[in-house]
Amino acid sequence: MLDPVSILAREIARLPGIGVRSAHRLAHYLVKKSFSQSQNGQPSLADDLARALQAVQQNTRLCVCCRNFTTEVRCQLCEDPRRNPAKICVVASVMDLQAIENAGVFGGLYFVLHGVLSPLEGMGPSDLDVEGLLERARQPEISEVVLATNADVEGDTTAMYLADRLDALGILTTRLASGIPMGGALEHLDGGTLTRAFDARQKMSA
Amino acid sequence: MLDPVSILAREIARLPGIGVRSAHRLAHYLVKKSFSQSQNGQPSLADDLARALQAVQQNTRLCVCCRNFTTEVRCQLCEDPRRNPAKICVVASVMDLQAIENAGVFGGLYFVLHGVLSPLEGMGPSDLDVEGLLERARQPEISEVVLATNADVEGDTTAMYLADRLDALGILTTRLASGIPMGGALEHLDGGTLTRAFDARQKMSA
Repeated sequence: MLDPVSILAREIARLPGIGVRSAHRLAHYLVKKSFSQSQNGQPSLADDLARALQAVQQNTRLCVCCRNFTTEVRCQLCEDPRRNPAKICVVASVMDLQAIENAGVFGGLYFVLHGVLSPLEGMGPSDLDVEGLLERARQPEISEVVLATNADVEGDTTAMYLADRLDALGILTTRLASGIPMGGALEHLDGGTLTRAFDARQKMSA
Repeated sequence: MLDPVSILAREIARLPGIGVRSAHRLAHYLVKKSFSQSQNGQPSLADDLARALQAVQQNTRLCVCCRNFTTEVRCQLCEDPRRNPAKICVVASVMDLQAIENAGVFGGLYFVLHGVLSPLEGMGPSDLDVEGLLERARQPEISEVVLATNADVEGDTTAMYLADRLDALGILTTRLASGIPMGGALEHLDGGTLTRAFDARQKMSA
């Protein structure tokens, strides 16, 4: 029979990137903190966390339209009449969607894959709901699908697979450009990035 | 009004050593995991965590005798009749207590300070319940108090302060030896460790 502190540490250690030692340290921190907070009559961090976990559990679902996280049937982005419904940006995760939103660089709607094609991790087309994406891309108002997966092997593979499927529908499919990042120094760039930057070089107007 | 996922990320970011980005990543992981787990009819990680947090909150307190974490009035160590009640080992945290227990190197009882003297962090003698320690050291069955704080500035300061207070009671007070760790190579050791190893050098029997 484990004591409550060890059980908490065991559950924390199930989170990605948190080892057994860190999990114990965090569990002990939470216990100590809840002692001092209850002495001061404050709500404890442990309580706040437990409540937030339950709220997420009970109130969060996937948007029926784009698979973003939402508390309603459709997410705030899909409900926003100012967004351009003719363009769909395909991202691997909600984190990526938020990065694009924070940059304010895209005014259309999204489709979240919640993963990338990865035979090693057992992620195939059905896990990414590719059919759902094709279904949406078939709607007459759609004029462009922007593939915004990472510029790594799995992101590229996923983009190529999706481009192939979308091409069959006769839809304009684009992919984010790959090349030298802003502020990037040539001497520190890898060969792959340089190759892409050369291949996609553009004419400058004189 | 923040959405539940952002609230969860905000609470996770209150944990030590977890930044805002990691907190978001963990929150998103928990949400995605709870979708796939509820599809498979499994209890979700978010639920397990919430339950563990509440259990810790409701059932964990400090042992009245040694201030270890416990679910009872006295902890398992203090209740164990095979432990030697004549020796008390003073540690800064329950993590340190567990490290000593895992090494199986001490058969007595403990006293957990839950911190070290640190003027910068506002930790004074009253925060460490030094009076509680002295009270216990005054019991007639106590023959030795082992000071097992870290071998750093704050650990040393705390040990020196406690040794001073305990000396007044006429009790044998000892401190863990400082020196070359097992497997330690001289060329990689810092000057402070070497100095201590030289100062505390011991005669070898021929």
